[in-house]
Amino acid sequence: MTTTTSIMRSEITEQPEALRRTLDAVLPMRSEISALAGQTRNVLFIARGSSDNAAVYGSYLLQTQSGRLTSLASPSVATIYGAKVDLSGVLAVAISQSGRTQEIVDTMRWAADCGARTVAVTNGADSPLTQAADVSLVTRAGNEIAVPATKTYTTQLAALAVLALGLGADLDPGRLTGVPDVIESALDQSDERCEEIAQRLVGVHGAVVSGRGLAFSTALETALKLKEACYLHAMGLSYADLLHGPIAVVDRDTPAVLVAANSGPTLPGIAALAERVASVGAPAYGIGGGSALGAACDLSVPAPDLSEWLAPVSLIIPAQLITEKLARRLGYNPDAPRGLGKVTQTS
Amino acid sequence: MTTTTSIMRSEITEQPEALRRTLDAVLPMRSEISALAGQTRNVLFIARGSSDNAAVYGSYLLQTQSGRLTSLASPSVATIYGAKVDLSGVLAVAISQSGRTQEIVDTMRWAADCGARTVAVTNGADSPLTQAADVSLVTRAGNEIAVPATKTYTTQLAALAVLALGLGADLDPGRLTGVPDVIESALDQSDERCEEIAQRLVGVHGAVVSGRGLAFSTALETALKLKEACYLHAMGLSYADLLHGPIAVVDRDTPAVLVAANSGPTLPGIAALAERVASVGAPAYGIGGGSALGAACDLSVPAPDLSEWLAPVSLIIPAQLITEKLARRLGYNPDAPRGLGKVTQTS
Repeated sequence: MTTTTSIMRSEITEQPEALRRTLDAVLPMRSEISALAGQTRNVLFIARGSSDNAAVYGSYLLQTQSGRLTSLASPSVATIYGAKVDLSGVLAVAISQSGRTQEIVDTMRWAADCGARTVAVTNGADSPLTQAADVSLVTRAGNEIAVPATKTYTTQLAALAVLALGLGADLDPGRLTGVPDVIESALDQSDERCEEIAQRLVGVHGAVVSGRGLAFSTALETALKLKEACYLHAMGLSYADLLHGPIAVVDRDTPAVLVAANSGPTLPGIAALAERVASVGAPAYGIGGGSALGAACDLSVPAPDLSEWLAPVSLIIPAQLITEKLARRLGYNPDAPRGLGKVTQTS
Repeated sequence: MTTTTSIMRSEITEQPEALRRTLDAVLPMRSEISALAGQTRNVLFIARGSSDNAAVYGSYLLQTQSGRLTSLASPSVATIYGAKVDLSGVLAVAISQSGRTQEIVDTMRWAADCGARTVAVTNGADSPLTQAADVSLVTRAGNEIAVPATKTYTTQLAALAVLALGLGADLDPGRLTGVPDVIESALDQSDERCEEIAQRLVGVHGAVVSGRGLAFSTALETALKLKEACYLHAMGLSYADLLHGPIAVVDRDTPAVLVAANSGPTLPGIAALAERVASVGAPAYGIGGGSALGAACDLSVPAPDLSEWLAPVSLIIPAQLITEKLARRLGYNPDAPRGLGKVTQTS
């Protein structure tokens, strides 16, 4: 085990503070969001990479709690095809860590031209994205240096929870403001178990990461982290999509990482999936899921008790820790994966 | 090389005839679709597995050609969370090979309860899905026995092209009716090249499959085929998503399969991606993409000349052939992958 630390590791531990600053700044903006969104019915998320995984969280949250149909944008419809789509009555929510990815800025501008109202969720306070948006929810993650997003991702989730409140979700904002403390006390406790899981993942070629509903976003983000920093062929799939074909790849050499909140309606399905994975001899590693998932997995990292709608903010943290530890064990620098820069430009 | 044939292989070759029967049946339904969709603005696709990949094609086609915003449903919002979402003004399009997957039937019924008009796209003429839908586009693929969907998938694409016409796409129906002949004459010609690519994929653990815009659906379906029948860790990613992180996994041992129509605005990006893949020493295999992609790849399968909006119907066929050949080379039965049944039940 290497003892070197990394910038990614420091940024992981900064998350409680980053979340406090972000909530202080964006929670008061609920009424501004309500006013902007009053005339809209659908929400269109515009994002890539980790921000797109945050959008998946936002998508489930708004559909289950705010009664709004959501879409994830296909930016090429705007930037490559230059299509004319009727977006009147649509609230377009562009999510970008830097606020400077040209494709995202261009797609948000296109949405406005097509009739949408626009919201930016970004850590780039004075970025082209905030300049172009009707309302900006600026996360206060501070400067993020490691390429794999950590604190910018969890603060995006917090901003999206505020968006849901602004759109009328009947949820207790007090629960949201309590999240930073809950995460802070859980951070140290999960370190050792994450180390054990990272150790088991050394030498593994491929893995499946699965979650359902609100925690599906966590599965996607976990898979992305493992791909970008550990070069592991990790596939993020919802519980149901996994059973529609890809379950065939799970075998003795292909572990499954399963993610769930400690409570909620998706938990029985994920626990059953862990048993199915075990029945074909594949290792199952759990993140969260309370005792139901823990009992069905070979190893699991307990998650603090948070309501299902807030659990994704905490569930990703063990995955970040596992990624950072595994990258270092494999001799990679988690702060600077090969072939990637901090601001990705696509068109 | 094994000489045994398979049911999957027979079903691949039946596609021109299946497409002819399907187009004869569904093209006349354009006016019925127009009438149903007149009061709707957004389209919500409800599907899983291969049908979900067909939905991705439909999503790009309707956004680029019919001016409609589309969403891919998260069935758990309906079946697990029982959420109330405002779906007035929404056309819900449920796609299911069998028409009997309970989750899809339930989600379509939920959409109707939330105010949506409903269309079924299915090969199950007298299925619960057709019984519940306002209008049904019944594909005429005939009985499909092999578990990996082939002719039910391409006929779904044809039905979705008809849907686009019904929703006002300014495209020539004559091009669509010409597709079966074009595919028929191309089928035999690609066999040898597919054999060569299958041979190169023996022993490979993971692969990346990429396409963009309308052909992104083909990349996703290719990756699913390779996962379910060859147990290959194949990741289907859009060109842009690949550059936002997962490009890090591409190396000498991780080939990229790149898919594009012979013409269209996404072609330069895919050809540039092939060059980037080659620059890190990874093998690049092309499907379609004309001479631009062919020149940038180690090996490629030429595709017949079809307009970009119709190319996905033909581009998937070499991928089906490669999957069938690779499965047999690996000693697997392509007709019956482990852990999968023909009708997948999820809830």
